[in-house]
Amino acid sequence: MGNGAALLAIGDEMLSGIRSDTNCSWLASRLHGAGVPVRGIQVIPDNEEAILETVAGWVGKVEFLVLSGGLGPTHDDRTRFALARFLHVPLRADDQTYDRIVARYEEPLRSRVEAARSTQALIPDGARGLLNPQGSALGIASSAKGTDVFSFPGVPWEFRAMAEAHFLPRIERRGTWKQVVVAGWPESLLAEKLADLLLKRTLHVSILPSAGLVTLVFRGEAEEVESAVLRVRKELPDDCLEDGETDLPPAIVTRAAREGISLACAESCTGGLVGAAITDVPGASRVFQGTAVCYSNEAKANLLGVKRRTLEAHGAVSGECALEMADGARRVFGADLSVAVTGIAGPEGGTEAKPVGTVWFAVSGPSSRKAFKRNLAGDRAHIRRWATAIALETLWRTLKEG
Amino acid sequence: MGNGAALLAIGDEMLSGIRSDTNCSWLASRLHGAGVPVRGIQVIPDNEEAILETVAGWVGKVEFLVLSGGLGPTHDDRTRFALARFLHVPLRADDQTYDRIVARYEEPLRSRVEAARSTQALIPDGARGLLNPQGSALGIASSAKGTDVFSFPGVPWEFRAMAEAHFLPRIERRGTWKQVVVAGWPESLLAEKLADLLLKRTLHVSILPSAGLVTLVFRGEAEEVESAVLRVRKELPDDCLEDGETDLPPAIVTRAAREGISLACAESCTGGLVGAAITDVPGASRVFQGTAVCYSNEAKANLLGVKRRTLEAHGAVSGECALEMADGARRVFGADLSVAVTGIAGPEGGTEAKPVGTVWFAVSGPSSRKAFKRNLAGDRAHIRRWATAIALETLWRTLKEG
Repeated sequence: MGNGAALLAIGDEMLSGIRSDTNCSWLASRLHGAGVPVRGIQVIPDNEEAILETVAGWVGKVEFLVLSGGLGPTHDDRTRFALARFLHVPLRADDQTYDRIVARYEEPLRSRVEAARSTQALIPDGARGLLNPQGSALGIASSAKGTDVFSFPGVPWEFRAMAEAHFLPRIERRGTWKQVVVAGWPESLLAEKLADLLLKRTLHVSILPSAGLVTLVFRGEAEEVESAVLRVRKELPDDCLEDGETDLPPAIVTRAAREGISLACAESCTGGLVGAAITDVPGASRVFQGTAVCYSNEAKANLLGVKRRTLEAHGAVSGECALEMADGARRVFGADLSVAVTGIAGPEGGTEAKPVGTVWFAVSGPSSRKAFKRNLAGDRAHIRRWATAIALETLWRTLKEG
Repeated sequence: MGNGAALLAIGDEMLSGIRSDTNCSWLASRLHGAGVPVRGIQVIPDNEEAILETVAGWVGKVEFLVLSGGLGPTHDDRTRFALARFLHVPLRADDQTYDRIVARYEEPLRSRVEAARSTQALIPDGARGLLNPQGSALGIASSAKGTDVFSFPGVPWEFRAMAEAHFLPRIERRGTWKQVVVAGWPESLLAEKLADLLLKRTLHVSILPSAGLVTLVFRGEAEEVESAVLRVRKELPDDCLEDGETDLPPAIVTRAAREGISLACAESCTGGLVGAAITDVPGASRVFQGTAVCYSNEAKANLLGVKRRTLEAHGAVSGECALEMADGARRVFGADLSVAVTGIAGPEGGTEAKPVGTVWFAVSGPSSRKAFKRNLAGDRAHIRRWATAIALETLWRTLKEG
């Protein structure tokens, strides 16, 4: 049939921003991978009327409706009651399935789970109780107007285990998607360059920009998706991350490890963000020696050996200083390749000659030593984020060039 | 009036699970803190009909409707078109606001931003264009049937900057609410200690935990709110941030600047996150000298002067090493006070004696020199986040103690 799926997360804690829903986005990704488009994700309160109304809004419009949460034993667990009202049927206890759950527990938990039977075993008459492999609340499968409605508990591992056990296996593979990540292109320029691809009626393209990267996601027939990815890689041979890579830091760590190259950084305005990004990658310690964040001129001179003369003649925000910082990081950390960043993140510290947003970058390695400047727009956080992205891109490109 | 808010995130990438929405849950938390209940969060596709239908479903039912995404220049940016159709008005160019955006860019980007004017400057006739402080897409403010409708770009930092500039100030100004931020208390223990306050029927309390901090937001009659804040401050005299402070890094920079104390750090497992957090504060350069991120043992010895003997006898994850790192940071950066962090963030590198999550901290200053250990749970990102929070808390407490 078709018409996709809708996913509902039930819980006041998500509407007050105390928790954010992870179940629906996880399931959306799995469904998407299996070719089932997700039409909508909704977060709704622990409230029978709201659940009832939202379920009624989707049933008959989608093939699958999946509810997360509201199946526990407490007064704010209203999902089963809302479902029974929606289906116009009474609740009944699915004792057979609940017995299997109770049997899994030992005292003292067992008697608590038994005591919760009077609510947790209840399912709408005509529905099917679903065994929860990890917790004590039953899941519920029902259907109405051509929509299969699944309700799973909201505890993330229970939700996932139940979706894996009772829902995902029956979804057949119906389509395909692939993504390619491009570095160093503003979204608008990239969209222009690939305009004909983006306008193809038989291909669905999502463009996802983040600092320094644009992710292109193609969906459609397998062959067409494949040829779109090849087209992008051919058009931008120097700018695409490798297949399966989605961000620069893991790409940097993987390539450096493969080639036995050790890395270091010298940072000023980014304040440690470059090092933090690289060390976010598990196993970064195989290649990453460290980063010297030298905010003051004294630190640049003392730690990294930037010459006083350089600081006096050119200032800390200069190509000369960036190069000496990069050289210094390579030397003091004993690293093969280093990148340096020094700039003015603002809001203060700008001058006419060097306004806020002026950032110098340098690399120092066995076959490459150079500096370049960028003028970045935006506020302090934005400038720091982009300076970090550019430093990472520089490291990545230098590693690629070998 | 009342009736709260509804938040819509627009974008196929969230329905396909490639990204998950963070804008709505962030805004939900801010609105909740300001006393505006969120009635629903919905993720909907890049599709004019879906946007139109969803907007129509909320307008007239809530006081505020906030849309995230779909305002860029590409073919899948449909929000402005859907809004115009919903309002039954044509689109017009807000050239005045767009001029201010174009003026911020330099070539070659400037001409691209100019070229995007034909879509990005368009707003529904009668609506208000909102200046985007970080990107090139305009935001849109309109209203219908008593609902104020705000549309902001979906790029997270643009969304947040625009909500802070154009929406939140008018919400947070009204009503009586006050917050107090508590450091170093787990949410559950704090809730227990303040149980009677939390149960008061005439006071609405939100508890918003983040790494290392819990923000308590009180809403109600002015007098009662005031007395609740005083009660918390009296009960936890050493653990509350000062009035108006909402996070540790600004509190650290303010206090250090006031007392003329310069700061430095030495980091291992946090990889630069402590330095990045402190330098996130505008004006941090008044007090912050730098951070030496020494991932390898060689770097710890060479840069910070940690003794080879210490590394051999106790290992890099030890109180002895942490103390020598802190001493070294103080010395090489010429700082008055320093904090050091060294630990095992995982997933690899743990041993039976020092499992993943073992983190040592040390401070070194004129009147305080000590080390302590914490065993942190969770994955790599979680351990790094908490280690950073604890390092910042340590610096803050040491500054307070003088």
